[in-house]
Amino acid sequence: MAASKQTLLDTIHRYVELVATGSSADVVALYADGATVEDPVGSEVRTTRESIAEFYAALDGLEQEARVLHARVAGNEAAFAFELVTIVGEKKLTLAPVDVMTFDDEGRITSMRAFWSEDDMVWS
Amino acid sequence: MAASKQTLLDTIHRYVELVATGSSADVVALYADGATVEDPVGSEVRTTRESIAEFYAALDGLEQEARVLHARVAGNEAAFAFELVTIVGEKKLTLAPVDVMTFDDEGRITSMRAFWSEDDMVWS
Repeated sequence: MAASKQTLLDTIHRYVELVATGSSADVVALYADGATVEDPVGSEVRTTRESIAEFYAALDGLEQEARVLHARVAGNEAAFAFELVTIVGEKKLTLAPVDVMTFDDEGRITSMRAFWSEDDMVWS
Repeated sequence: MAASKQTLLDTIHRYVELVATGSSADVVALYADGATVEDPVGSEVRTTRESIAEFYAALDGLEQEARVLHARVAGNEAAFAFELVTIVGEKKLTLAPVDVMTFDDEGRITSMRAFWSEDDMVWS
């Protein structure tokens, strides 16, 4: 049986929270075996747990805040806009992508594709 | 050569405007030949110009307003949240999906997938 809409929304909120404040291992644990990550869309697709872990490890140790802006679920897929703010000294770097995810029946992420471009990164 | 980011953003804004206030023929004209429409995600994919026209014809004659909430482009693909408000007498029906589109080199839409569920429709 497919995961419920609420389960998928919970996973999305947990994902966004962990990307900002969790360890890369915490984030990777949300992914199913065999999952793929394409971030940003158009870049090489990561297909192994090691390469996905490497991707999120780049965020470890950063001071970050994040929040979900708009999330929509359809069946076992979802798309959501979120905002990730990285504090760098007295400045802030904000990136607000739209991520598209697919999920397995247990609500684990089976694929993630992130829509954003270089010039969506805003310093303030 | 791929369409520019600005071309895709222009098409997205025009799409949202036309869905609300244009004719179904205007909307369909934004699609490339051979385009597909899956709205909502999980429903049967429309693969002919006739079936896509039929889909948008359901909106003809409705009093609607729409605006783009958050749009992100990555290569020749894009994802965007938008809000569509339908005025029904003294009430308003609001639906705010996230659409994912792919585009050809001229910026015509080659596929559209809309993420939303029944309970995202809000009466006010």
